[in-house]
Amino acid sequence: MTKPLRLGIAGLGTVGVGVVRMLRKNADLLKTRTGRPLVITAVSARSQKDRGVSLSDYAWEDDPVKLATRDDVDVFVELMGGADGPAKAATEAALKAGKDVVTANKAMLAEHGHTLANLAEDGGQVLRFEAAVAGGIPVIKALTEGLAGNEITRVMGVMNGSCNYILTRMQSAGLTYEEVFAEADGLGYLEADPQLDVGGIDAAHKLALLSSIAFGTQVKFDGVALEGIERVSIEDIRQAADMGYRIKLLGVAQMTARGLEQSMSPCLVPETSPLGQLEGGTNMVVLEGADVGQIVLRGAGAGEGPTASAVLSDIIDIARGLRLPTFGQPADSLKTVPAAQSTVPAPYYLRLDLLDKPGALAKVATALGDAGVSINRMRQYGHEDTTAPVLIVTHTTTREALDVALAGLPGTGVVTGDPVALRIEEV
Amino acid sequence: MTKPLRLGIAGLGTVGVGVVRMLRKNADLLKTRTGRPLVITAVSARSQKDRGVSLSDYAWEDDPVKLATRDDVDVFVELMGGADGPAKAATEAALKAGKDVVTANKAMLAEHGHTLANLAEDGGQVLRFEAAVAGGIPVIKALTEGLAGNEITRVMGVMNGSCNYILTRMQSAGLTYEEVFAEADGLGYLEADPQLDVGGIDAAHKLALLSSIAFGTQVKFDGVALEGIERVSIEDIRQAADMGYRIKLLGVAQMTARGLEQSMSPCLVPETSPLGQLEGGTNMVVLEGADVGQIVLRGAGAGEGPTASAVLSDIIDIARGLRLPTFGQPADSLKTVPAAQSTVPAPYYLRLDLLDKPGALAKVATALGDAGVSINRMRQYGHEDTTAPVLIVTHTTTREALDVALAGLPGTGVVTGDPVALRIEEV
Repeated sequence: MTKPLRLGIAGLGTVGVGVVRMLRKNADLLKTRTGRPLVITAVSARSQKDRGVSLSDYAWEDDPVKLATRDDVDVFVELMGGADGPAKAATEAALKAGKDVVTANKAMLAEHGHTLANLAEDGGQVLRFEAAVAGGIPVIKALTEGLAGNEITRVMGVMNGSCNYILTRMQSAGLTYEEVFAEADGLGYLEADPQLDVGGIDAAHKLALLSSIAFGTQVKFDGVALEGIERVSIEDIRQAADMGYRIKLLGVAQMTARGLEQSMSPCLVPETSPLGQLEGGTNMVVLEGADVGQIVLRGAGAGEGPTASAVLSDIIDIARGLRLPTFGQPADSLKTVPAAQSTVPAPYYLRLDLLDKPGALAKVATALGDAGVSINRMRQYGHEDTTAPVLIVTHTTTREALDVALAGLPGTGVVTGDPVALRIEEV
Repeated sequence: MTKPLRLGIAGLGTVGVGVVRMLRKNADLLKTRTGRPLVITAVSARSQKDRGVSLSDYAWEDDPVKLATRDDVDVFVELMGGADGPAKAATEAALKAGKDVVTANKAMLAEHGHTLANLAEDGGQVLRFEAAVAGGIPVIKALTEGLAGNEITRVMGVMNGSCNYILTRMQSAGLTYEEVFAEADGLGYLEADPQLDVGGIDAAHKLALLSSIAFGTQVKFDGVALEGIERVSIEDIRQAADMGYRIKLLGVAQMTARGLEQSMSPCLVPETSPLGQLEGGTNMVVLEGADVGQIVLRGAGAGEGPTASAVLSDIIDIARGLRLPTFGQPADSLKTVPAAQSTVPAPYYLRLDLLDKPGALAKVATALGDAGVSINRMRQYGHEDTTAPVLIVTHTTTREALDVALAGLPGTGVVTGDPVALRIEEV
């Protein structure tokens, strides 16, 4: 098979330019490894501005749908982003026109992945998305292929570099969330809509994609119990560190008797664990299989080179003739299962503000006890105003019991504001 | 493609039995994921003893060569081990008979990989070996496919769990090498010939296989500069710890202007680095690509489940129709390059025994300086006999200069015995 594989690339931002650069720089290497030339025939972007890379060898299309359906394109490479709009229209057009599609678009796949996978498989096309999850880490391949002999028992990960940057920077510099957020925004580390990052949405998109492959289920983004990092205070980070923990925006997915549990939320993890050691913008994914045990993958979760590398790996697979279903098994065999809220018991970290009244601590302890939540450690801090910060680490309990306990706190008359409750994952 | 894929398994030790168990337990899952049943048709082993798993559904062959060439076998699964002998004979017979081969045999591939890859590719067969390197970690797949868009710049790894167990146990329990070696041997952690483990041979086999894929070179095991862990003393481990390092049996492979450098030797790595944090029998492989940066993979490097999982992933690839050359590019395109001895400069840790004579330290410092090796830190310890242990950390230097310096030490008349010299890798 020495026929060139002809690529049409839509979207020439950081990642798109990275893909063009790698295809040019590594042309000989890629031909040796795949047995055929990988050639760009046409590109599309919003404007024809100078991007520091020559595009004169390629046809230009203003309309990505036109690019996607060109006769001289075998693989449509979608790097525009956005769950809907041009990205989705062009992807659908490409699949309907018999083109394979490679995309880095986590939002589109988390929202429409099942429909798109069906569309691809109906026509015998492939739709691949290694670059959509954890940047340069070949995690989709590891899960879909490398560990495919295993029943997957759990998937975990820190998959948003911006959040991890904010949390580790708060810790190392002793700055508040607001200070580091402003800093990260100024450095261009955050999405145009920062809520995608700090609200955990971007990371939850990624988790939903991994879940689908791991558990053979239809991708279900709205099944992810989602909590951002906005309420994590420097105080929480300090207290966690005192107890030997770090706070990470951690995704966890596991199949239970009650359904598929998916959560993306700030959690405490041991500081000596691989997840606890993860600094700055690096990503880490933990895959657990019944036979293989725990496999940990670590690498750059974003950036031109790492993301382009992942896009290339999908293109290379197609060039080599690997044709897998989008989620590792036929789309029509993917199950729908109910979304379950974490039934797996865990200890929790609580921080609440207590009114300075006699017997206040006892009232809180009673409220927790009444809900079946027992206290492992409790600390009250010195204070200058009328409320005192109190920190509680519970024994292992269910989220259900904890929610009952939290609902009972206002009734004590001694707790002000909303308590912070973070799960402790002893990974 | 719903035709069953028919497997013949030779070798029913821990890994072979693990593969049989996984194929039975996960039969439905595997059929869903590959689109076809994976069935065992025949097995072979040295004896028909009870192995805790029913083999009555499968034909039995005493001779693995006969098994490998049976008409009802599509894929020959070689799990006997040994670089030559029955494993090689049966693998060759299978390939000549038009069968694909999956093997966990690092010794056979490190010694004969190039010949076997040529044999496979001449006939259009595939020969796969995910289980040969780092147990359950899908590292062959990550390198051959996941990072295939990159020029690979360096490969590193801790890939012998027994050595890592010995080194971490020495550290944590404060025991000598000899004590922990005896303990590990008693626990059955070591190969029948322990030199394969502690001499670094097993780990070097694995490194040579990774090098071949990474750099597109013919596998060259005898090009690995090899040093085992036998000379690492508890004193070295303590001194390293004092300076913030751990000692690991570390493999490093990189292409330089002078050729392919491959080394497997005890090295100092920062205790806070992913490699430094690696405890016990776990393996870790670090892959560095020009665009993707550093990717770190961690998991169980041995054992029934992890190794069987890797064997299964190769079988699944074949069932799904993925047909790659053994080393990721056609065997006849693999280069032969000279083996180079580490030209990449690094700091070194030296431990030597000094005679208690006036000016002894100065003589050592002069000998090192004459060879162009400058000293960063030096410590002399209290002592009760006529020699004093001295510890030196050099500034960054070449191995060549260091060897000149070491050769000059006997001439000083103040150094007794062979100095220990360990490279420091600031990974």
